Amino acid sequence: MQGSSDEFSLIETIRRRASVGPLTRLGIGDDTAQLLTRGHAGVLVAVDVLMDGVHFDLSQISPQTAGRKALAVNLSDIAAMAGQPTAAVVGLVLPQNRGALLGKQLMEGLIAHADEFGVDVIGGDTNSWDVPLVISVTVLGEPTARGSVTRAGALPGDWLFVTGALGGSLSGRHLTFTPRVAEALSLHERVDLHSMIDLSDGLASDVRHIAKASNVGVEIDADNIPIHTDVNPSLSKHERILHALTDGEDFELLFSVSEADGHRLLEEPELACQLTLIGRVTAGDCLLVHSDGTKAQLPQGGWRHRFDD
Amino acid sequence: MQGSSDEFSLIETIRRRASVGPLTRLGIGDDTAQLLTRGHAGVLVAVDVLMDGVHFDLSQISPQTAGRKALAVNLSDIAAMAGQPTAAVVGLVLPQNRGALLGKQLMEGLIAHADEFGVDVIGGDTNSWDVPLVISVTVLGEPTARGSVTRAGALPGDWLFVTGALGGSLSGRHLTFTPRVAEALSLHERVDLHSMIDLSDGLASDVRHIAKASNVGVEIDADNIPIHTDVNPSLSKHERILHALTDGEDFELLFSVSEADGHRLLEEPELACQLTLIGRVTAGDCLLVHSDGTKAQLPQGGWRHRFDD
Repeated sequence: MQGSSDEFSLIETIRRRASVGPLTRLGIGDDTAQLLTRGHAGVLVAVDVLMDGVHFDLSQISPQTAGRKALAVNLSDIAAMAGQPTAAVVGLVLPQNRGALLGKQLMEGLIAHADEFGVDVIGGDTNSWDVPLVISVTVLGEPTARGSVTRAGALPGDWLFVTGALGGSLSGRHLTFTPRVAEALSLHERVDLHSMIDLSDGLASDVRHIAKASNVGVEIDADNIPIHTDVNPSLSKHERILHALTDGEDFELLFSVSEADGHRLLEEPELACQLTLIGRVTAGDCLLVHSDGTKAQLPQGGWRHRFDD
Repeated sequence: MQGSSDEFSLIETIRRRASVGPLTRLGIGDDTAQLLTRGHAGVLVAVDVLMDGVHFDLSQISPQTAGRKALAVNLSDIAAMAGQPTAAVVGLVLPQNRGALLGKQLMEGLIAHADEFGVDVIGGDTNSWDVPLVISVTVLGEPTARGSVTRAGALPGDWLFVTGALGGSLSGRHLTFTPRVAEALSLHERVDLHSMIDLSDGLASDVRHIAKASNVGVEIDADNIPIHTDVNPSLSKHERILHALTDGEDFELLFSVSEADGHRLLEEPELACQLTLIGRVTAGDCLLVHSDGTKAQLPQGGWRHRFDD
């Protein structure tokens, strides 16, 4: 068919552009990839599927930006385990109309972001159909010698910290954020991280994941939540806090440490980004503490995919 | 919303059903999974994305069968490397209408098949939208102590073998095939596999991948190609051979070994399935050899996803 290009040519283009680092024993081009591991802690694995029209809108943003985001959300998951991302495989479902060009541009953005983090794109699968773009990215990583940090280790008395500032991400930051990989590794080296998660659904929702996994409660100080400048400043204070709690897609780190380690972090945060003490781990419920000392249930908030049964 | 269920409830259902074997350090429920590795050869990684209406038709087959297939095609990739599959992560895009039920049934079929192969489902991502189902499965595996077998090691003089019989798979076998994991491991233990691939696009297309990667040619003996009984027996011999060469989705193994190892396999195949010598590796082109000794170019054939540029 004159003027057409097919999946092998797209894969060949991707293969030529992808970096091949020392851990990649076999990259793109065989039945599977083969990734070497250092140490004995095996591999971390995260997967996220993003769809045009749901997670981004290709009529509004470039394919390169969409590709970058599809990788970045997974890097944020590896960061949440205090791991080092090493490799990615990409499943693409491209619309038949201009799919090859879209695929190339998308992978340009993804591979450029991968290169920033020393991540090799080692494999993938490419398909076309007559509906919008779907991109599924699986990222592999390694725990450091200190092991991985889960959601399950929070202890009553722990202090809760958050990196960066929260809320209003959907005005653009959700596409351009830098995954907190370096910050997580730095924190993991300096203090004993009891529990950690990345904020994708929103603080109010994600802190409940730590609470549930650790079988604890939390008290978040409303006045201490770092509200991003992306949140409309003309809103009431209450509304601005609600945005910071529930907007989601912040891709910041939420973690808990002992009080002693908490003091250490306040004295020497040593991070390129803001670090804020926002509350405590308790043996009770998940509560929001207002400046007058009154406590209320944390709002449920946060994004969930719903089905009609 | 009354009568609705959301992604957390679906994930919880999947988590309860998924097996957790000794290599799964962290399964479903944290920011990433963590999979331990034995030995120093790292992990094999394969990804395949399947769509309702392209790879199967949910108006014709059960969700359980679709889930089984989405895993099986990846297990076949691990088999092609002579590896042992260990774990899978699953990205689901479910239609909003009855998505939760569909997701549960799909994962039932996938997890049952995973259990047959000792594969743990260790993570995933679930989304919903208003278009057909998409399922992206990433399978991890391990090379054995003998290493992985790629497409790139074929040598002129090698003998080419194929497991099972070819052609007519789309009449149903493409949904119910058993990935040749056990056969690949058994062969890898007994002979020196120079090159191997699984037949997904069809013999004519897939043998070219070995030829290209190994920088060799092949001669396939037309009369020796094992034609599956699924190929219409009322067709001419020529047409039946063409089906076996180009139908695709056989998910059998094609591999090359030295002549000495080839003799050994003919004497003691020791496989639960048929094993057939179909040709030789050469320093020339990719040719089909007819019974009268005449040679022709192998047909191109095979499935490719095409884009309109």
